[in-house]
Amino acid sequence: MVSKHLFTKKELDAYYDNLKKENLGALWKDLGHMVTKEPVHDVKPYLWKWKTVRDFALQSGQLLEPGKDAERRVVYLQNPSLIDKGLIGFGTHTLYAGIQLLLPGEYAPSHRHSQAAIRFIIEGEGAYTAVNGEKTYMERGDMILTPAWTWHEHKHEGTEPVFWMDGLDVGLVKSLAASYFEQFKEESYPALAPEEYAIEQYRGGAYKKLNEKIEPGYPSPVYGYKLDRVKYLLDHMTEEDNDPYEAYAIEYINPSTGGSADGRIGTVMQKLVPGQHTKAHRHVHSAIYHVFEGQGYTVIDGQKFEWEKGDFFILPPWSYHEHVNTGEEDAYLFSYNDKPVMEKLDLEFGNAYEENGGQQIITSTFKAEANEE
Amino acid sequence: MVSKHLFTKKELDAYYDNLKKENLGALWKDLGHMVTKEPVHDVKPYLWKWKTVRDFALQSGQLLEPGKDAERRVVYLQNPSLIDKGLIGFGTHTLYAGIQLLLPGEYAPSHRHSQAAIRFIIEGEGAYTAVNGEKTYMERGDMILTPAWTWHEHKHEGTEPVFWMDGLDVGLVKSLAASYFEQFKEESYPALAPEEYAIEQYRGGAYKKLNEKIEPGYPSPVYGYKLDRVKYLLDHMTEEDNDPYEAYAIEYINPSTGGSADGRIGTVMQKLVPGQHTKAHRHVHSAIYHVFEGQGYTVIDGQKFEWEKGDFFILPPWSYHEHVNTGEEDAYLFSYNDKPVMEKLDLEFGNAYEENGGQQIITSTFKAEANEE
Amino acid sequence: MVSKHLFTKKELDAYYDNLKKENLGALWKDLGHMVTKEPVHDVKPYLWKWKTVRDFALQSGQLLEPGKDAERRVVYLQNPSLIDKGLIGFGTHTLYAGIQLLLPGEYAPSHRHSQAAIRFIIEGEGAYTAVNGEKTYMERGDMILTPAWTWHEHKHEGTEPVFWMDGLDVGLVKSLAASYFEQFKEESYPALAPEEYAIEQYRGGAYKKLNEKIEPGYPSPVYGYKLDRVKYLLDHMTEEDNDPYEAYAIEYINPSTGGSADGRIGTVMQKLVPGQHTKAHRHVHSAIYHVFEGQGYTVIDGQKFEWEKGDFFILPPWSYHEHVNTGEEDAYLFSYNDKPVMEKLDLEFGNAYEENGGQQIITSTFKAEANEE
Amino acid sequence: MVSKHLFTKKELDAYYDNLKKENLGALWKDLGHMVTKEPVHDVKPYLWKWKTVRDFALQSGQLLEPGKDAERRVVYLQNPSLIDKGLIGFGTHTLYAGIQLLLPGEYAPSHRHSQAAIRFIIEGEGAYTAVNGEKTYMERGDMILTPAWTWHEHKHEGTEPVFWMDGLDVGLVKSLAASYFEQFKEESYPALAPEEYAIEQYRGGAYKKLNEKIEPGYPSPVYGYKLDRVKYLLDHMTEEDNDPYEAYAIEYINPSTGGSADGRIGTVMQKLVPGQHTKAHRHVHSAIYHVFEGQGYTVIDGQKFEWEKGDFFILPPWSYHEHVNTGEEDAYLFSYNDKPVMEKLDLEFGNAYEENGGQQIITSTFKAEANEE
Repeated sequence: MVSKHLFTKKELDAYYDNLKKENLGALWKDLGHMVTKEPVHDVKPYLWKWKTVRDFALQSGQLLEPGKDAERRVVYLQNPSLIDKGLIGFGTHTLYAGIQLLLPGEYAPSHRHSQAAIRFIIEGEGAYTAVNGEKTYMERGDMILTPAWTWHEHKHEGTEPVFWMDGLDVGLVKSLAASYFEQFKEESYPALAPEEYAIEQYRGGAYKKLNEKIEPGYPSPVYGYKLDRVKYLLDHMTEEDNDPYEAYAIEYINPSTGGSADGRIGTVMQKLVPGQHTKAHRHVHSAIYHVFEGQGYTVIDGQKFEWEKGDFFILPPWSYHEHVNTGEEDAYLFSYNDKPVMEKLDLEFGNAYEENGGQQIITSTFKAEANEE
Repeated sequence: MVSKHLFTKKELDAYYDNLKKENLGALWKDLGHMVTKEPVHDVKPYLWKWKTVRDFALQSGQLLEPGKDAERRVVYLQNPSLIDKGLIGFGTHTLYAGIQLLLPGEYAPSHRHSQAAIRFIIEGEGAYTAVNGEKTYMERGDMILTPAWTWHEHKHEGTEPVFWMDGLDVGLVKSLAASYFEQFKEESYPALAPEEYAIEQYRGGAYKKLNEKIEPGYPSPVYGYKLDRVKYLLDHMTEEDNDPYEAYAIEYINPSTGGSADGRIGTVMQKLVPGQHTKAHRHVHSAIYHVFEGQGYTVIDGQKFEWEKGDFFILPPWSYHEHVNTGEEDAYLFSYNDKPVMEKLDLEFGNAYEENGGQQIITSTFKAEANEE
Repeated sequence: MVSKHLFTKKELDAYYDNLKKENLGALWKDLGHMVTKEPVHDVKPYLWKWKTVRDFALQSGQLLEPGKDAERRVVYLQNPSLIDKGLIGFGTHTLYAGIQLLLPGEYAPSHRHSQAAIRFIIEGEGAYTAVNGEKTYMERGDMILTPAWTWHEHKHEGTEPVFWMDGLDVGLVKSLAASYFEQFKEESYPALAPEEYAIEQYRGGAYKKLNEKIEPGYPSPVYGYKLDRVKYLLDHMTEEDNDPYEAYAIEYINPSTGGSADGRIGTVMQKLVPGQHTKAHRHVHSAIYHVFEGQGYTVIDGQKFEWEKGDFFILPPWSYHEHVNTGEEDAYLFSYNDKPVMEKLDLEFGNAYEENGGQQIITSTFKAEANEE
Repeated sequence: MVSKHLFTKKELDAYYDNLKKENLGALWKDLGHMVTKEPVHDVKPYLWKWKTVRDFALQSGQLLEPGKDAERRVVYLQNPSLIDKGLIGFGTHTLYAGIQLLLPGEYAPSHRHSQAAIRFIIEGEGAYTAVNGEKTYMERGDMILTPAWTWHEHKHEGTEPVFWMDGLDVGLVKSLAASYFEQFKEESYPALAPEEYAIEQYRGGAYKKLNEKIEPGYPSPVYGYKLDRVKYLLDHMTEEDNDPYEAYAIEYINPSTGGSADGRIGTVMQKLVPGQHTKAHRHVHSAIYHVFEGQGYTVIDGQKFEWEKGDFFILPPWSYHEHVNTGEEDAYLFSYNDKPVMEKLDLEFGNAYEENGGQQIITSTFKAEANEE
């Protein structure tokens, strides 16, 4: 049995000192930092203007040698709150956003990586993405999946520059020490299927070749998600579908699971009608928003972020947020998030903002400040 | 312990006699009838000509009072080999086929049943089927699901008669003593979704409302399967996809599972190019065929069944069969089967015909004979 | 268009006559027989006394040559209501029950079939069943799985006769024309695992070898279900667990699915405390009961079936039934059923008996009558 | 179109300068840090001696007031390579290990958290863990699950101190900003099930109450994993089961999935026979090892870590490792890892060490150095 002995202050200091020397710790002192009552994080919200981002991206077209490194002609959003921690390329702790420019005739050769990626087309037409040998054309408002581990490449067959947003889970994969990247041994992956075959296979019913194996799950059997579908579905939502926190919202899904289109990155298009002002809530998952159409603002933990068409902003984890459409047209917000990860790991939870009728009191307004370092 | 005693012939007879009186049986005598080395059944193949069936169906339009009993204006295929067993309405031991006529303005009120049903449109346009309050329009060559237990109704808004084939698992449900039928309390089920909403939800990607629950599985989230999709997919198959037994074949699937569109009734469209002659095989599942386009013949256990556009024929379980296109155009065979049932119950198996280079020797040619009873 | 014409009686008769000759039918006349409002069947309840069955089984030990055909030393229950239909070996439309005798030293060589099988040990010890090369010893009250398609064999290493009940889905497989039987090429299947390995693998936790593949689903990873477990669990049920229709009931499950231990045959042990009288209900699935311990009666569609230890009785589909324990000890009823089939095919439904406080009025008492034929 | 213009050095500097001010980045410069060819991490291996850890833990029994904070009488392993990053309580980037002392009569009141936890009993007996109201007793070598979100508590009813190892995914949950902790409103959660009920439910077969819902998946239906099972299974492995990299290894599984017992923390017991020396490989997942029995060493990225009974050591992600048993008895290594997380997120991969016959050249031997800071 343990015999009782009262430690003197000196003995106690020695104990802690020795513990530390042995690379051990006392849980009774540190538990509160390890297992907190609710989520703790360093991610702050931020907003970037489309004009600024577009200009920098466009200049990269002149900066980099034509036809070379086309897959890297990307300006990425760097969350200033994460720079100090050396987290380069982080929009949130898990998600990355880059704005990619592809010039007519340019080509990004086939490669693959363990990071999941989605693309959202902002401007231009005539470019395609090929995933595992199947081309999908990209038009403004479309969302394209290039799931983790799939071979993918981009080419621009049109005449005007194309801009799209890349969404990857760079932060997540870095945190988990699981990065992998591989260039395909040739410039282009062999064409294994007719153009947009999957889109054909999954519309007006769903079909497979008699001997084709389809494993429900990951990745999604379709890669191209068309804007006109999203608009159609949003336009056919009724008042009942109007979510108090998310307004009219359509989620892009994997038809074989009913869950998120990508297995790790969730994607959502929200519509706010003129004057609509949602209630605030918060949740574990974080998101990056792109204003597809309209103008308004979002309040994040009391801070007002004013946005208009083309802008990007960060929603950190566990942050109260509500959206307002101040324009005269419907506003459309496209966003992607890490919710599927949290759900797969049984880590998603959240709560509504209860005070003040469910809407926050605005305590400050965001103004981009130059990062002078 | 059992003491040894030799039974006399008389004692033995008495034993079996007494056993029978007690409603007991001796497995050592009867095992061979209960557990056979391979499938045993009473289903014989048969073929019906479209012209005959169509005429009878059309006359039912005059026979029955207009606007009444529209859901019963159906002529069904009765397999003569199953009449003696009292199996009324059986095409195979599990499957039923009926040819339904819907006249302009007619309406079949909402009902549901435990039988699964598929519809294949043979002639006409302007009619719709509504499933659980969602309308899908029916055009020649389309396949429509009305899964077991779903409320469904049909209405004809066009100007010419519409003919379609109903495929139900009447025999299966009867064998399992599991029939259920219920008329909806009102004529029409409430419209719960926009027209062909599911088709919109599952094309050009796949989507759900943010709070919509989608359970992968049964029934399929889409009800309408369009001919142009099937043709597109068949036309994009390559020589590699050309199955030795089934030629070019597309299966209608449930996007949420990758399996059969209906959970119990499998559906397939096959294309045979001119001159194509498949190899023979057999399997546990049975099928009913409808010749959508073309002419040729099918050999079933050595018997030749000549067919042309519109005809129907029975493929019994465990019967060798091969198909031949004798025309100058592609032939299209639509068929439905009980394969999903056999697969769910782990009872599907089969084998290829090995002799004679894989093709049967024709020993007779089918000729419909009048059922004189 | 269809021109209107009124059929004369004579024309009508000719129409129906011609329809029949062409092996076609008029749905408007026959629908009611095909799709009934509720289940229709020919299965009647029946009861056999243990003493009778045991005597006949024991005599088979003398009747058949020792050491030969040991796998066929089985007396099966023949439901008299199904004899006329030529359904030999049917207890219900789907299920078979046989009582098997294995004498000391006897051996049933390895074989497999498409029928699913369960064994329930009634008397004796020292015999084992081996499934895919893994032995499980059989003691009174144990339930052993030999799932469809698995290689299995039995051997008796003890000194006294062993009796068990075989439960197979002979009727189901026959209805679906899916029977398959194969004798193993040698007498015994190779021993691929230590004795009762699966039982060890799934107790006190659950484990696998690092590189072992375990596919959740079918068949169950465990084959031997021990009586002492069932009793322990029944004894730890509380009043809350006392089901109004089934009393205290434990279902044998497949740990990898949470569903029925066998994928097609459900298995249940019920306990009724002295004086317990359940309420009546009915359901699509049928069952065969074996009275493991106790005495009482079951009322099936108004008919009283008195039972005592060792007896067997038939519960047809869609039949109201309630159980009563008239003894001074707990009564234990073991039963197996076709519920997993109905559930997999989405065909299971049922309802409670609403009148008379939920218990039937007894209109007759069953008395076995000699089958004089 | 983009007009071509050559940037001067000065313009280029201005571009990058302005980009940074706007909190934007140039992917063409930073991609290599974001998406690396293979995993990059800061986790170094380390080893702690049991005697040292045990002494500090035992002293905590005197240090902390008796009967108070019993749930915190834990000395945790602090990986020195992660201290600089402020990662307090991290053994690897995802996993935490603490050695907990529970004194006779002590009690850790009911609480729950979003972190998953496993317990491995090192010394003592008479303590129990209750999960969601069901007690499981803890003996040396047992592994106990307290899955994320389940209410759990510990109590010591024995007479000697009990030591166990706590394994939690503190790092993972912190990286994902998903921590949650809640004390139960009363000291003890209501007893909802008999002691070790789940163990009874899943041994000698598997069972459920008739109306019990069992959802295959998460968490495991069993909480207590007994040492004697693991030893039995290891002892029945054959040479074929001897994995070149992991020797004889048993994984603790969730019977309802066939996958890891805990949904996020994998658990394995390995046996090395005397003289056994495995080949080296590496993988994305990381692990923390506890030497249950025996002596030997492990080579991690060329560094030799000598261990004996009771010691703990860290296996970082993506580090070549091989194990050697230098003793005369079997060595048993218990370890837990983050492999289920990597697999759920489709991020697990690895490779064998190919050079030098698959075994590393030892370049240094680990010697614990005092952390002087």
